[in-house]
Amino acid sequence: MITVKEAEGLILENTRDYGAEIVMFDEALGRVLAETIKADRDLPAFNRVTMDGIAINYSAFENGTRSFAIKGTQAAGANPIEINSEDQCVEIMTGAAMPEAVDTIIRYEDIEIKEGIATVLAANVKKGQNLHLKGTDKKQGDLLLSPGTTITPAVISLIASVGEAELRVKRLPRVVIISSGDELVEVAATPSPYQIRRSNNYMVQAILAREGIKASLINIPDDPEVIQHHLAICLQNYDVILMSGGISMGKFDHIPQALAALRVQQIFHKVQQRPGKPFWFGKHDNGVVVFAFPGNPVATFMCTQRYFVPWLNASLGKEESKPIFAVLESDLTFEPQLAYYLQVKLQFTGQGQLLATPLAGNGSGDFANLADTDAFMELPSEINEFKKGEVYRVYLFNQLQ
Amino acid sequence: MITVKEAEGLILENTRDYGAEIVMFDEALGRVLAETIKADRDLPAFNRVTMDGIAINYSAFENGTRSFAIKGTQAAGANPIEINSEDQCVEIMTGAAMPEAVDTIIRYEDIEIKEGIATVLAANVKKGQNLHLKGTDKKQGDLLLSPGTTITPAVISLIASVGEAELRVKRLPRVVIISSGDELVEVAATPSPYQIRRSNNYMVQAILAREGIKASLINIPDDPEVIQHHLAICLQNYDVILMSGGISMGKFDHIPQALAALRVQQIFHKVQQRPGKPFWFGKHDNGVVVFAFPGNPVATFMCTQRYFVPWLNASLGKEESKPIFAVLESDLTFEPQLAYYLQVKLQFTGQGQLLATPLAGNGSGDFANLADTDAFMELPSEINEFKKGEVYRVYLFNQLQ
Repeated sequence: MITVKEAEGLILENTRDYGAEIVMFDEALGRVLAETIKADRDLPAFNRVTMDGIAINYSAFENGTRSFAIKGTQAAGANPIEINSEDQCVEIMTGAAMPEAVDTIIRYEDIEIKEGIATVLAANVKKGQNLHLKGTDKKQGDLLLSPGTTITPAVISLIASVGEAELRVKRLPRVVIISSGDELVEVAATPSPYQIRRSNNYMVQAILAREGIKASLINIPDDPEVIQHHLAICLQNYDVILMSGGISMGKFDHIPQALAALRVQQIFHKVQQRPGKPFWFGKHDNGVVVFAFPGNPVATFMCTQRYFVPWLNASLGKEESKPIFAVLESDLTFEPQLAYYLQVKLQFTGQGQLLATPLAGNGSGDFANLADTDAFMELPSEINEFKKGEVYRVYLFNQLQ
Repeated sequence: MITVKEAEGLILENTRDYGAEIVMFDEALGRVLAETIKADRDLPAFNRVTMDGIAINYSAFENGTRSFAIKGTQAAGANPIEINSEDQCVEIMTGAAMPEAVDTIIRYEDIEIKEGIATVLAANVKKGQNLHLKGTDKKQGDLLLSPGTTITPAVISLIASVGEAELRVKRLPRVVIISSGDELVEVAATPSPYQIRRSNNYMVQAILAREGIKASLINIPDDPEVIQHHLAICLQNYDVILMSGGISMGKFDHIPQALAALRVQQIFHKVQQRPGKPFWFGKHDNGVVVFAFPGNPVATFMCTQRYFVPWLNASLGKEESKPIFAVLESDLTFEPQLAYYLQVKLQFTGQGQLLATPLAGNGSGDFANLADTDAFMELPSEINEFKKGEVYRVYLFNQLQ
């Protein structure tokens, strides 16, 4: 049985580039950039006024001039108004391009205007004040964004500003989520006393939706021929097959045989972890990867977050995520030689330290508990006694804040 | 001029409940629950087998029996197979309901099966092992989820499991984002040397998209009559009007007058903060709230995250978010008597402490910088000298991890 680190390594050796596609910039939120974005002109593109007021030549002010004849009023977007004498000024608005003959803005609050003359009331005026100078943020041709950048709202704004209306982003893999097991009934149905409602597939679908993937859902019965038939179709039509359940040693777990018959190579089966020990991972010759997770809700949830999402991010060429560490808030014993994924609630101290309070449920079947927690804390298999105050890595599944 | 705290208080005094609506559970990701969800039956609903193997009566094993005649094989979802003698067993699969006459599961790895007889090889068998007992997670009628819960993937799974296919969630406010300013051109257009491309509206739209809101976009020219006409229509058709730009003291900033003419009451104008000092907030008699942010990209970004999102969360009845604190990683001086929203990159130490490294841009016009940072650190207005090692609150705008 391999370790968590080995499993992670094997999964990341089997990432794949699904190419790129063009989307409109305002529909690209959450996607991964597949091109380099450069500044099409200086940022700012001109000496940009940052306060409404008057534009003067500082040397006039320095020489004692306090009253300036208003030559005109310049809105943002308008051509600069030219003035030809030092005792003139331009009334000018935030966002406007500074005329060449002037160099300093005095805001309305610091002047008085009467009969076309603006008089400066402020004693303290600095040369060049209230201007955002051309090219101080970026020069024309400067790199703004690199391939692999996740498209956030701030990135969208930057992309809009340089006119990249059509954007090259990484193509997302086509994913199908297969649930199997005759004990499962539909959500709207009433299960018999020995059945349960289908839920893992919807949970995985929601995790993928957060990553921008609209996954298909397929339910297949515990029948070897039907399973093989469906898997064969999925291997032709999807890039990734995610499964929950049907991979343990039971008589009715026909999936491993079906996968073998369809020439999906097993890369590993079983990982030294709880939950999720029976996790199976493989790949078909045609490149389709198969993540077969144990059917326990918590195991499926953990494996999707811990293994599938990093695989996806690496396949998309995203920058690697920075690890998050938290302080364990209570003592804990875990005997088995397995990595243990502890469900925790997170909270920051006033000192900026992240505290992880375990909310131990009743094992991998207990998903009522999952809804109340924020993250898994990864407790290493080599240790059995975990003490309050020790620090371990956590994997968030809900956003902080 | 009011403080950040006062602005926040006034905004949170003007939240509004937009009621509830029914959505399908698998389209409810990110929405806020508007009903109480209880367990429709015990969780688990029956004594659930957690390993594939045989089900025996422990007292037989205790009395020395090691070989058991296999009465039948029971799949998950099937009716329990009844046995009538202690030397019988049932082959049973993970997820199956435990028959009444047996109490212990021995997994396949620990038995040998020959000619219909299962022989136990393991010496160490615990009574009741490999079972997840009925009702140990939750009892029928127990509270699972309360109104105000954000619907995460784990919540979706829980909701599916109790059969709540149609879900009552909080209705989202209808939001319009208005951009104004004759200096703005469309993203696909080539601006004149004194124009810039529209970008703030798309940035705000993306922030709202993350919150599940599909906001409308409207662009209006700097013309008093046109502005008033459009605002009047928006006041009839939306719950929230978000604006960027057009609210400072300039000659061409017609929006404050138009709002006044339409009887939108100013609740405040100007906050002791940088960026975003000219932030204007008001409300119409009919309940429509108006957030008018300064036109600087960084100011609009900060105000949307810092003021609009918390207003939205409170309006939806979401649980209050837990504050995040981080350690400032370098010294900094900020003289004005304003709260300063410093752009920072975040990273955890191996000790679980969150470090904030400033990536100071060129002021509120510099949004190239925004794309490289994770959060705003809120530096209080009463302090001017900030030292490395001090801890302040941060407001994330990108997800950690």
